[in-house]
Amino acid sequence: MAVWRNAIPSRDELHEAKREALLREAAAAFNRNGFHATSLDDIAQNLGLTKAALYHYFPNKQTLLSACFARAMEVAFAALRHAQADGVNGRDKLIRCISFYVERMIDELSCCVVLLEENALRPADHALLVAERDRFEQALRSLVREGIADGSIVACDPKLVIFAILGSINWIPKWFRHSGDWSSGELTKSLMELFDRMLSTHPAAALALEVGGSAAQGP
Amino acid sequence: MAVWRNAIPSRDELHEAKREALLREAAAAFNRNGFHATSLDDIAQNLGLTKAALYHYFPNKQTLLSACFARAMEVAFAALRHAQADGVNGRDKLIRCISFYVERMIDELSCCVVLLEENALRPADHALLVAERDRFEQALRSLVREGIADGSIVACDPKLVIFAILGSINWIPKWFRHSGDWSSGELTKSLMELFDRMLSTHPAAALALEVGGSAAQGP
Repeated sequence: MAVWRNAIPSRDELHEAKREALLREAAAAFNRNGFHATSLDDIAQNLGLTKAALYHYFPNKQTLLSACFARAMEVAFAALRHAQADGVNGRDKLIRCISFYVERMIDELSCCVVLLEENALRPADHALLVAERDRFEQALRSLVREGIADGSIVACDPKLVIFAILGSINWIPKWFRHSGDWSSGELTKSLMELFDRMLSTHPAAALALEVGGSAAQGP
Repeated sequence: MAVWRNAIPSRDELHEAKREALLREAAAAFNRNGFHATSLDDIAQNLGLTKAALYHYFPNKQTLLSACFARAMEVAFAALRHAQADGVNGRDKLIRCISFYVERMIDELSCCVVLLEENALRPADHALLVAERDRFEQALRSLVREGIADGSIVACDPKLVIFAILGSINWIPKWFRHSGDWSSGELTKSLMELFDRMLSTHPAAALALEVGGSAAQGP
């Protein structure tokens, strides 16, 4: 039901916005300190909430971690749909997919990062994550095969290439800081240049020389 | 003192061999199940030892984890010395260094893998690790700069390139299995081809099409 002629967010929209703020804060805290060293109290406190208010959204820490992973997989499959719709060949689709995924993950989940804590998931949640992730990896390998077939990607082993790329992007949370010199957009663009050069049948003669215009980023 | 005319290992050699077997088993267990979910009992049991025998080498789980990281950094700096001595230009040195590091880490420490559990280190050990790792990363960036200067590496951002490469290799333990179709040598060689193509001023026209001759590897 529209109240205030939709000038203010609806109850559902507010609930969703709060839930997303919670996910973002939880992902950031898990990344920073690890799942085991982070308490629900820490997360609540960082958001200026009581633990009781937090329970309204997530009954426990495992549910919160599981929701972070679920969101990551939503972003992954949104990236895939986006790439399938707009890409002109296999390589272009692959790069668009990875690019969309990385930029969204950095902005929405303070990095994919959380993906390092999968051992802390409950067995059923873990099995679901593994199945979804396999499906995503298979789709990425298909894009590589498509690129080899259409001549946009050099002969290569799709499995190894995707493992190498996923490793690079899953590692971003270990070193990227929002407070650093690189924006998520600059980082994503420059990283995609690297992957593109690795795979393209017509590799670029040069890459970005200094991402973000300064070398002061990182640990 | 030589006993049995050196036909059997000395007491020191035996101690060292046992210590290394322990490190390898600990690294494998931490990788498989995470640091927190692994007990000293598990590790002792997998080696057919009592926990008391294990205490003779490592007084607690933290010391064991810290020794895994120390060994990883030893391997890293050995790789760097090896590359500096044998490499003919910046790119060749960088690839030799990474290649040596990856293959040794897979074979000696059941993968660099453990590197994901750094949050479990005690503060002093963590600070030491961060300092050593920074030193290694700085050295790798220098090799990239050397390669740009001598014309073997395309114009690029050394910092981003090294983050991308380290991400790929630190991710290997998440998917590589010794029981799979790829040997550590095949994996290393094919991964280096990818990095080489990403960076070389004369990128190869093709890469290995099927590492290990079969596509049945991985999770």
